[in-house]
Amino acid sequence: MSAPMVEADADVVVVGMGCAGAAAALEAARAGARVVALDRAAPGGSSAVSGGELYLGGGTALQQACGVDDDPDLMYAYLHEALGPHPDEDKLRLYCDGSVEHFEWFRGLGITFNPSLYDGVSWLPPTADGLMWLGENAWPFTGLARPVPRGHRPATDGFGGWLLMDRLTTAVREAGVDVHPDTRVTGLVQDDSGRVVGVRARRFGEDVTYRAHRGVVIATGGFADNAEMVADHAPVLIGHSVVSDGLDDGSGIRLGVAAGGTLRRMASTQVALSVVPALAVRGMLVDGLGQRFVNEDVYPGRFSQAAVRHRPGPWFTLVDERGWEDVPERERWGVQPAVVAETLAEVETELGLPPGSLEDTVARYNRDAAAGEDSLFHKDPRWLRPLEAPYAIVDATRGFDPEGTGSRGGTGVSGFTLGGLRTSVDGEVLDASGVPVPGLYAAGRATSGIHGEGYVSGTSLGDGTFFGRRAGRAAAGC
Amino acid sequence: MSAPMVEADADVVVVGMGCAGAAAALEAARAGARVVALDRAAPGGSSAVSGGELYLGGGTALQQACGVDDDPDLMYAYLHEALGPHPDEDKLRLYCDGSVEHFEWFRGLGITFNPSLYDGVSWLPPTADGLMWLGENAWPFTGLARPVPRGHRPATDGFGGWLLMDRLTTAVREAGVDVHPDTRVTGLVQDDSGRVVGVRARRFGEDVTYRAHRGVVIATGGFADNAEMVADHAPVLIGHSVVSDGLDDGSGIRLGVAAGGTLRRMASTQVALSVVPALAVRGMLVDGLGQRFVNEDVYPGRFSQAAVRHRPGPWFTLVDERGWEDVPERERWGVQPAVVAETLAEVETELGLPPGSLEDTVARYNRDAAAGEDSLFHKDPRWLRPLEAPYAIVDATRGFDPEGTGSRGGTGVSGFTLGGLRTSVDGEVLDASGVPVPGLYAAGRATSGIHGEGYVSGTSLGDGTFFGRRAGRAAAGC
Repeated sequence: MSAPMVEADADVVVVGMGCAGAAAALEAARAGARVVALDRAAPGGSSAVSGGELYLGGGTALQQACGVDDDPDLMYAYLHEALGPHPDEDKLRLYCDGSVEHFEWFRGLGITFNPSLYDGVSWLPPTADGLMWLGENAWPFTGLARPVPRGHRPATDGFGGWLLMDRLTTAVREAGVDVHPDTRVTGLVQDDSGRVVGVRARRFGEDVTYRAHRGVVIATGGFADNAEMVADHAPVLIGHSVVSDGLDDGSGIRLGVAAGGTLRRMASTQVALSVVPALAVRGMLVDGLGQRFVNEDVYPGRFSQAAVRHRPGPWFTLVDERGWEDVPERERWGVQPAVVAETLAEVETELGLPPGSLEDTVARYNRDAAAGEDSLFHKDPRWLRPLEAPYAIVDATRGFDPEGTGSRGGTGVSGFTLGGLRTSVDGEVLDASGVPVPGLYAAGRATSGIHGEGYVSGTSLGDGTFFGRRAGRAAAGC
Repeated sequence: MSAPMVEADADVVVVGMGCAGAAAALEAARAGARVVALDRAAPGGSSAVSGGELYLGGGTALQQACGVDDDPDLMYAYLHEALGPHPDEDKLRLYCDGSVEHFEWFRGLGITFNPSLYDGVSWLPPTADGLMWLGENAWPFTGLARPVPRGHRPATDGFGGWLLMDRLTTAVREAGVDVHPDTRVTGLVQDDSGRVVGVRARRFGEDVTYRAHRGVVIATGGFADNAEMVADHAPVLIGHSVVSDGLDDGSGIRLGVAAGGTLRRMASTQVALSVVPALAVRGMLVDGLGQRFVNEDVYPGRFSQAAVRHRPGPWFTLVDERGWEDVPERERWGVQPAVVAETLAEVETELGLPPGSLEDTVARYNRDAAAGEDSLFHKDPRWLRPLEAPYAIVDATRGFDPEGTGSRGGTGVSGFTLGGLRTSVDGEVLDASGVPVPGLYAAGRATSGIHGEGYVSGTSLGDGTFFGRRAGRAAAGC
């Protein structure tokens, strides 16, 4: 067998061109390194199919333009709790302290943000407002730190991930990075000392190698598309839908481990439930015991985790007629009531809830609403109103149908993985003793980032790019 | 530097002499292999300080002597749910099908079991009965499979782990195994092909090696005593007490990974809350919202998980005077009421519960009790009785005080880890592709065993010995 052809000789080889890899490639090139960036498909990755929100703050120019006063400590206080328990405090501190500068970096790529605030509760606002709340104004966070909105939305219609990746990829090419699409990395090359000095890859049917004189950055994304790894590490996602481009197969995580890297927090995941927040906040979320379990005005990922991880299903939204009609049809994402009933007893029977359970729950809620204080979960009083017959129930386990096709497939639950390679704040991949594997770096969802057991929109694009940049600079030798 | 002295030349080297290692060593020796078994301390490990219950069934001689009819399918049905979601079905099937024979293996070691059933709810029965319930007779399991008790207790006073390990260690020595205590394994020796052919160790201040012509079995236990590994993989245990001999530092898991092994389910843990089941079952368990969350007659580890993983704390037991006095003082494990009150409103104020929440919960419970049906969680009607003032509250986060010292330290939560090396049903350590690392085997809590996210007493000693035996035979070449 002949030795594979050397395809390129670079200072830094970046594996995977989602947001983390693109950020790493760009910063390494700007630091003067000769950079080659590989992607098994086209650049973009799962980042390009994401909503595009960026969790940023500490007093960004967008926040200022919206008249919002923020500082890094307020941001840290919120994220420490919202991403917890047990976030990575070292990474989180840097992320908050560096957030204003990181926002300017995005603006420097030509990404713009409309200077207005969306003040509703949504997965994806129906407006073009550039700033949105991501749970900061909901209990228990309101008691921890002054609420400040930090969801930064690139100016575009709907999902903004494609725009983000378009601008990032353009900047990467303009910085002189050699981008090789359709190139699948199959192994890392280590020298006799164990230093990572390149990668092996499959490109247009040929085995090739890329030399990396300074470092290799793994930015291949998570493992939600790898059923075996999900079963081994993140069983909460078994059987559910995956939020990805279909290529989050954990291959880079495995390459890192094979080179001596270790894993961290592999069971942590984002989880999203097919609930329309605008409906839920006007009524209540109910579990299979007929009990409320959360204030419905939290970031929707938080009520999703509260349900999927911690409460027996099935999970439902209960609203009354006024609540249903308050939400414009196009903001209902195609959901339809599973049950419409004049009495709660009927609902209990239809859904198989314990007799009287929903009646108890609604009676308490209505007493609280009349008094203006949600005594269990402290939902903002602006969303409190006694519920009246007739009632509509929307089953959260039946998915959305925004196109109105009548097909609402799946389990109603989708997610992606947050665990991966254990890295330093500079993206060095760490071995079992906490020592860097020489020449090997990683960022994005191939790593364990700022997250503990919680998640907030924009923190994955956020920490992927933030620590991707740091990894790129470190790999370039800066 | 001179090469380390070769201390011994064996067919099979077993690392760690808790229940899994002892079972592996014994079976390898019985299969004709020359076996050396190493332990960094004395034989026994965390197994020796455990309660000693064995989860066995399918129709064991003990079950028959107690007049209990069981079969492997009933056992599988219960454990599949109780250890789930997502237990290891291949391992679990073998475990249930082999359980009658496995019980005879224990009897063959000279361990006896008194042929009587303890019919209460307890972490550790106050009697010498040889058989106990471990949640099989509680909802929702009663609806899945005919309830059969399967907790097998070696005949001894109190904790039986020492007896189990005493008999096992004696059998190991009698089988001709060379047992080396105070020998700490520091690395695995692999030949040029990657096959594991021995271990490096530190023994009485000297570096030595042990050759293993057929295989090495890692049986070093879990990682609950390694704070860094707990933070990386099992954050639910951060800050809590550890159930171990103090030496569950994950060292063997790391050795296996360094040799090419992979990890599985590292976030799975057992969790125990300092609740006296006999009190809880006569009243109710309440969370920080003033809500019940479980039928109090389940296996106590199950209500512990239901609380610690899924409900906001602090967690409390509420009983009335009659319930308190029904439990003999020595069975109260030294707990004292945190609050004694004539009204539930007083309790709410003292504990900071939402106003009216406990009143709602008790009103519902008392209605259900009067009707003879727990409509939320289906606790066995024999434990249902309307609760009456005065009430006593026992705080679960303050620990036990069985010696009556007045000191109830810690968080009230303790646990150990269930994740580890990914292995075949024969204990082969598997690499990222699912291929065995040649010459390397593992068993017990250094591996991921039959468990999904749940736990039942006796399944760790149970799967440790069961799959330890299989690993020992496989390593011996049988």
